[in-house]
Amino acid sequence: MSDLSALSRPSRVADPGEGISLDELRLAARNHAMPAEALRYDVTPPGLHYVLTHYDIPDADPAAWTLSVGGLVDHPLTLSLADLDAMTRHTVRVTLECAGNGRAADEPRPVSQPWLDGAVGTADWTGVRLTDLLDDAGLQDGAVSVVCAGADHGVERGVEQDYERGLTVAEATTGDVLVATSMNGDPLPPQHGFPVRLVVPGWYGMASVKWLREIRVVDHEFAGFQHQAYRVRQTPEDPGVPVTRIEPRALLEPPGFPDFMSRGRVVDAGPVELRGRAWSGWAPVERVEVSADDGATWLEATLDGDRGPYAWRGFSASWDATPGSASLRARATDASGRVQPIEPVWNRGGFTNNASQPIPVLVR
Amino acid sequence: MSDLSALSRPSRVADPGEGISLDELRLAARNHAMPAEALRYDVTPPGLHYVLTHYDIPDADPAAWTLSVGGLVDHPLTLSLADLDAMTRHTVRVTLECAGNGRAADEPRPVSQPWLDGAVGTADWTGVRLTDLLDDAGLQDGAVSVVCAGADHGVERGVEQDYERGLTVAEATTGDVLVATSMNGDPLPPQHGFPVRLVVPGWYGMASVKWLREIRVVDHEFAGFQHQAYRVRQTPEDPGVPVTRIEPRALLEPPGFPDFMSRGRVVDAGPVELRGRAWSGWAPVERVEVSADDGATWLEATLDGDRGPYAWRGFSASWDATPGSASLRARATDASGRVQPIEPVWNRGGFTNNASQPIPVLVR
Repeated sequence: MSDLSALSRPSRVADPGEGISLDELRLAARNHAMPAEALRYDVTPPGLHYVLTHYDIPDADPAAWTLSVGGLVDHPLTLSLADLDAMTRHTVRVTLECAGNGRAADEPRPVSQPWLDGAVGTADWTGVRLTDLLDDAGLQDGAVSVVCAGADHGVERGVEQDYERGLTVAEATTGDVLVATSMNGDPLPPQHGFPVRLVVPGWYGMASVKWLREIRVVDHEFAGFQHQAYRVRQTPEDPGVPVTRIEPRALLEPPGFPDFMSRGRVVDAGPVELRGRAWSGWAPVERVEVSADDGATWLEATLDGDRGPYAWRGFSASWDATPGSASLRARATDASGRVQPIEPVWNRGGFTNNASQPIPVLVR
Repeated sequence: MSDLSALSRPSRVADPGEGISLDELRLAARNHAMPAEALRYDVTPPGLHYVLTHYDIPDADPAAWTLSVGGLVDHPLTLSLADLDAMTRHTVRVTLECAGNGRAADEPRPVSQPWLDGAVGTADWTGVRLTDLLDDAGLQDGAVSVVCAGADHGVERGVEQDYERGLTVAEATTGDVLVATSMNGDPLPPQHGFPVRLVVPGWYGMASVKWLREIRVVDHEFAGFQHQAYRVRQTPEDPGVPVTRIEPRALLEPPGFPDFMSRGRVVDAGPVELRGRAWSGWAPVERVEVSADDGATWLEATLDGDRGPYAWRGFSASWDATPGSASLRARATDASGRVQPIEPVWNRGGFTNNASQPIPVLVR
């Protein structure tokens, strides 16, 4: 009856030299990045944490909101916010990053939300452990996936859907996954999932379903639209591999002051303390290096204290700035041996591009 | 010694057919718009109100922060935050909009922050009246402009500067202008000017200097960089006219649900209540009309109650949606007789483009 394809097109890759389109700009205006100077904050203040909303921010009535837990469970649950608040609560500091962070630097550019490098933020999330909820409900034999459904509804690449992602039972019951109702000690802001969301530490943001209204335990590995969409593939036909944990990345607080339009930096000659933050969803960050010559040579950075297994870690390095042009970079290495590349590693969806970002600087 | 022009270029207009550049995208990622569905809120929740930062968000230490009032005054003041908190405080609900809202729809496109139509938001601002501060300081004879300087420092079109704007003494002493320390009952978020900012109700956002650290009374009409930049002109040589008050605009909450990429909407056939908000800095909004056929015919909308002289006003209209394609628009008329145009009125800076925005809808 309706032809959704008229307004919902297949994914595509930009033509060579094609500028950012109005469609991409519309997404960039809605889905905001963390400005780089906000790397100064260990916990990102409200409104500076990155936001990605696939469809619309739902208009949630907290008094009427329920979260259901059903499917292959002994005791299906229907929980109000008061029920969730009455359960044992935990707080975890988590760095979340969008899987598409870095996409706009890919060549050719996958046409989607055109993130540069700011799709990141760190918050203290408070809520109930997903594994505790599943214990209360009682997982039945044969349970394979825990499907989490949000209230956000839309159409994407021609497919009408609620936003849904699944976790395997093993992933869902690690004890780390939270059903959160609070961000930095306050109720969730609307754009971060008010009143209830999932937080899957260590994973790219697509796993942390916002506006969570249903948890459904099923007997098969869930492979819904968002599992097909978030795959690293080279061609549309390539089955690819799923996007899961966050690849290591280090970002620098840009030193000096910026030009309004180019965001290039001006720094006075002399010693400059470079600071930044680094994270990985695979293993603790073990090493950060900083370069002032676009990666030709590297300085070892000093790591700040650890802020927990899922939070970014500060670092600093001293740079003796001499007059002229410089290109600053940082790169992180984690305990699993993953090292940030200098050049993007291309894939059709523009996912997991953790290439080191250059910051152009004029030293005067 | 340093050549700022290497990283800070003159303003320019995009070539015909030129896509959004990486420079513009970088600004769009930092400076976020209000997502259209947030029009449902009378007061915009934190993190959804639009943000424009010319340079970096300063790293403010509230304990050390002072606001000085000097120049042509009898009693120069140096005020701490505690001093400001001890003065008589007022709260005003204000709709702020960026002067460049709508710029990205201009043809040819002025290359700057590429706003579509979301550079707006409404907040309850609380603080001290600027006129009370100036009374305490005692304006001297010969005072002409009140220059307000922020702590944000950068380079723009080749000119290094702190962000500064002036108000004439008449504008500064109306009683409406606030030196605000609170937004929606909380301390200002960093990106909205923490710890102190100016709020100039009815004016485009460039007048509402953030991170306010100095008020300087001078004997001439202040004509600093940001007064030269924010002018409506047709050519670089055109002296132009200053950008001041907000032109009328009505925006619709997009009905139905969106496509992820195109943001086109899907709506079920039948009666649809269209809602939105309208505002003007010149005079109260008197009339809002809504069109479902891209402006060929218009429906009269019903206005909600007034929320004060500087806040947007809700409106609603009933639309009988029939299957097929539709293009929704709204347009506002204020009591000064200003009517929103359908087509953009071009100027070289892309300012005050309040043309009615079309929303493509598929009715099924």
